[in-house]
Amino acid sequence: MLVQPYQLSATDVAAKIRDGQLTVEGYAQSLLGRIKERDPVVRAWAYLNPDQVLEQARKLDAVSKEDRGLLHGVAIAVKDVIYTKANGVISDMPTQFNSPLYKDDAPQVDAASIIILRKAGALILGKTTTTEFAATTQGPQTTNPHDSSRTPGGSSSGSGAVVADFQAPISLGTQTGGSTIRPASFNGIYGFKPTWNSISREGQKVFSLILDTLGIYARTVEDLNLLADVFALEDDESPNQQYSIQNGKFAICKTMVWPQAGPGLVNAMDKAVKLLRSSGATVDEIAFPEHLQDLPRWHSVVFNTDGRTAFLPEYRVDKTQIADQLVGHVENRLKISRAAQIKAFDDIAAARPIVDDMLSKYDAVLVPSVPDEAPKGIEATGSAAFNLIWTALHNPVINIPGFAGENGMPIGLSLVAPRYHDRKLLVVSQAVGKLFEVSGGWKSQIV
Amino acid sequence: MLVQPYQLSATDVAAKIRDGQLTVEGYAQSLLGRIKERDPVVRAWAYLNPDQVLEQARKLDAVSKEDRGLLHGVAIAVKDVIYTKANGVISDMPTQFNSPLYKDDAPQVDAASIIILRKAGALILGKTTTTEFAATTQGPQTTNPHDSSRTPGGSSSGSGAVVADFQAPISLGTQTGGSTIRPASFNGIYGFKPTWNSISREGQKVFSLILDTLGIYARTVEDLNLLADVFALEDDESPNQQYSIQNGKFAICKTMVWPQAGPGLVNAMDKAVKLLRSSGATVDEIAFPEHLQDLPRWHSVVFNTDGRTAFLPEYRVDKTQIADQLVGHVENRLKISRAAQIKAFDDIAAARPIVDDMLSKYDAVLVPSVPDEAPKGIEATGSAAFNLIWTALHNPVINIPGFAGENGMPIGLSLVAPRYHDRKLLVVSQAVGKLFEVSGGWKSQIV
Repeated sequence: MLVQPYQLSATDVAAKIRDGQLTVEGYAQSLLGRIKERDPVVRAWAYLNPDQVLEQARKLDAVSKEDRGLLHGVAIAVKDVIYTKANGVISDMPTQFNSPLYKDDAPQVDAASIIILRKAGALILGKTTTTEFAATTQGPQTTNPHDSSRTPGGSSSGSGAVVADFQAPISLGTQTGGSTIRPASFNGIYGFKPTWNSISREGQKVFSLILDTLGIYARTVEDLNLLADVFALEDDESPNQQYSIQNGKFAICKTMVWPQAGPGLVNAMDKAVKLLRSSGATVDEIAFPEHLQDLPRWHSVVFNTDGRTAFLPEYRVDKTQIADQLVGHVENRLKISRAAQIKAFDDIAAARPIVDDMLSKYDAVLVPSVPDEAPKGIEATGSAAFNLIWTALHNPVINIPGFAGENGMPIGLSLVAPRYHDRKLLVVSQAVGKLFEVSGGWKSQIV
Repeated sequence: MLVQPYQLSATDVAAKIRDGQLTVEGYAQSLLGRIKERDPVVRAWAYLNPDQVLEQARKLDAVSKEDRGLLHGVAIAVKDVIYTKANGVISDMPTQFNSPLYKDDAPQVDAASIIILRKAGALILGKTTTTEFAATTQGPQTTNPHDSSRTPGGSSSGSGAVVADFQAPISLGTQTGGSTIRPASFNGIYGFKPTWNSISREGQKVFSLILDTLGIYARTVEDLNLLADVFALEDDESPNQQYSIQNGKFAICKTMVWPQAGPGLVNAMDKAVKLLRSSGATVDEIAFPEHLQDLPRWHSVVFNTDGRTAFLPEYRVDKTQIADQLVGHVENRLKISRAAQIKAFDDIAAARPIVDDMLSKYDAVLVPSVPDEAPKGIEATGSAAFNLIWTALHNPVINIPGFAGENGMPIGLSLVAPRYHDRKLLVVSQAVGKLFEVSGGWKSQIV
């Protein structure tokens, strides 16, 4: 069967457009066709205006070859907590945060990430669903494209689902708890949370300044690499692109949250270790030192107290229009003292160099992404228990798909690295991803 | 002579409007008259539209008594790096960052601080001048209202000048290096940098997530207190409002930057210590421990490397349209390694609890605000050497005016406290401010 444009990776579609084999408009039409077909089931868009997409596409087709950027014509979906201005005459592109307070609100401003993407020639497809302000665990209307009775995860629900479902090759998410990595695992795609503040988060709804991180989804590591180029991610040393797992040094870290692991995760972890070892790598098992066992609780303290600051504006405007969980943050319902707040903030800070040091002894460290495959129902977005630690610590994390749960749903595992070893992590993830995809036992049935 | 409305403090004008002695429109007209008279010399506004101000004022007059907030009708000036949407039909209120890239740009969004202020009934007067993106030391066209041949400081140049000059009772600034405290000292007013992230910085241009702090200007501590109420600042313990300097416990900390002190600062510090002691307080001298002497350098590393992330969008859009200093950040001209970047970030983080502990032994600690009075010329905004440390450490800082330099220009000194002791610091600052204003030797000649 002929490959349709909507099925292409970002890297492949960029090449076809560059070579003149495909127009941006033709590509956009293919994606819009796919979306039209699938949207009634997956429901991953908070805003999508086909006319606006086509207008943008025609403008991009009119750009002369020498003015084209790395992403020229490549479509990207944007989580609806990131500002996007209208880039044309047809209409606004709103940013609504899944909040009635911001219904149809369309500030005429692009987030820093969007400015960079547009300058690289990206086609901003539309806005994808999110939990309220990316700050709750109550799911939007979106379903998991592999099984519509299950959640795609959250809070980047739509961004994860559209990439898995070939409605966009790449997308932007965010993570304050587990909002990028969890949907990546549930949807069977790559999710990349780069080092905190390595990409500007300006113009992305603030929940916690010290936790919020922009996230990226793709179906291939090659595409994550392309975006890493666009966003100028740079390690101190350029990694060897010829990396091989053979003779590689890995560790697994089950973390202090391991008691929450379900059978799907336990099996995936066992299988992954065997695959790495049989490919010629060593795999140690490492653990957090005793004095860092409270990291999940410290994250929770910062998460709650930063919410107290972040949602005061909406609380003041109309507290009956925001989730009770957010009202609780503002009212400090957990009665967290300022002393406890700064202690958690400082304890996490003190942990960062210790954990970097622990991770630096390996090519990458394998950790859980989620407790198990995506749970039934779309009301709740699942557990972020395994993600919080790495969000607090600022380490780059990549979810690698490839394993299956008891119901045949995808389960991924994450690779983590010390801060600002993002490019190294991408190189290692490419090799590990190939291994897990071929031998992990799960393959997407979506075509 | 009759006191004109424009001369009133925020607290006083709020009371008069509440009591029906003054309409918001009448108040706005008084301020606009003052601005018209003084603007040709002080040049502190990046945007001010009298018709829009009057339209806003009339709308506020129409609000029923029971729907009025704490700041009903009180005018506030806003640094032009903070988003303000048009609040009326007349026109936009642009946010231009003193950057040609954003000329006339008017995103339809309010910063978190502006949402809170509007909900409290504030009259958003207009936008005040800033250095480019609040990130350089090249002054805008604004002059010091006490001597137009001198700088008002920066980067919150206009916000400091308008409050000193009675063009607004209160204003918003920001601080990443010394951008709030330095102009406060140069203009002879109170400047308050609250604990980092105690007020949401959403919608304020990002330079450094870990350094940027919203700042507040006023001519009285009572007005800072009013704003602290509006922004819900809260310590673990409510401070005793009957605080007296007698039997108070103070320290001075000259800091490792003391060799940069000029004669104005040396005299002010000496005089302040004598005044506190003669009022019955004890004043110790304390110093940073040896291993924290590099704090200014750590700040500089974070400042530069965070600029690398923050200004990539503008660099990509058109690097010829941003200051060379910002191009230098993005291109990492200082060749700061990622390892050095995270070491500085972590070293500052480790210093925070140590310094909190050092400060916690006193009612407040007196530190320099600036090396000396405002220098001649408006091309450069002066030195932030004494401010960087406290910005990095996240401590609340209040500049207290009251002293004079060799040329009769104001010099302030700062009080600092442990993180989240903002309300306590305000109480102590009120008593110390009264002492310094009465006996420090400087009084504003502006009426």
